[in-house]
Amino acid sequence: MDTSSAALLRQLLHAQRTAALGTLRDGAPLVSMTLYLPAADFSAFHIHVSALAWHTQDMQNDPRVSLLVAATEGTSPADDPYSLPRLTLRARASRLPNDAPEHVVLRAAWLAKYPAQAVNFELADFSFWRLVPNDARFIAGYGRIMNLGPAELAAASA
Amino acid sequence: MDTSSAALLRQLLHAQRTAALGTLRDGAPLVSMTLYLPAADFSAFHIHVSALAWHTQDMQNDPRVSLLVAATEGTSPADDPYSLPRLTLRARASRLPNDAPEHVVLRAAWLAKYPAQAVNFELADFSFWRLVPNDARFIAGYGRIMNLGPAELAAASA
Repeated sequence: MDTSSAALLRQLLHAQRTAALGTLRDGAPLVSMTLYLPAADFSAFHIHVSALAWHTQDMQNDPRVSLLVAATEGTSPADDPYSLPRLTLRARASRLPNDAPEHVVLRAAWLAKYPAQAVNFELADFSFWRLVPNDARFIAGYGRIMNLGPAELAAASA
Repeated sequence: MDTSSAALLRQLLHAQRTAALGTLRDGAPLVSMTLYLPAADFSAFHIHVSALAWHTQDMQNDPRVSLLVAATEGTSPADDPYSLPRLTLRARASRLPNDAPEHVVLRAAWLAKYPAQAVNFELADFSFWRLVPNDARFIAGYGRIMNLGPAELAAASA
């Protein structure tokens, strides 16, 4: 990936706060809004979810998920929406136990990004789930479509 | 649905320009960004897509889709993202032929919402697809979750 596309991808993944999570429910797609935190090297994307939520039940049944991060936050009506950068991941989801060693660091990073979510760490039904990308599709703008493997995602993170 | 929730849902569906479309690809979810236009009575949601796009190929293979509309456009970093209204549809997709009688009206409405997309109507590979909801899940904010059938969606549209 060229350096300007990589910079755009980093900006996208660090600036956006919301993403669309696709899970399988009764074999059909279900898309819901989530918050997300990328690992520094883009090797994983973490979400913090309730066991009561449909998407969490779905991930327990089938780990195949997709995550879309699109640069919709802060756009103005003057922007052509198809010019917005966006990234689609296809990933495998697994639950991170609340007593895992990395939980403390993740929690601190999560709360730095999402200070209003502190209350969720008091609730027994919330856990981190780790989404590890199989591949990604980055649309940097009109006609700028890039299919990326994990190594290319990692290279773009630096 | 109470009248203030219905007003919030109408505002959401009319104000947002982008949505997240979930399709099935090799049996796994794929989520991509799309533009969308709701029918006045919320009985259908139209998208205008290229036959070359992955999501269109996916819909040709399996009509089961999900569409998420979340109130992310125009938000500011001060907003708590989990307070944002959002709607998830589970729907069935079918292609509308370009010579269908309703195409002319849809095209005019599409261009009124998306004036920058006129060029796509010059391209032979673009068509409207109609997503007809089986059901919907509206999250109006914290703890305000409503499961809706098509009749309740229609009632909220007026």
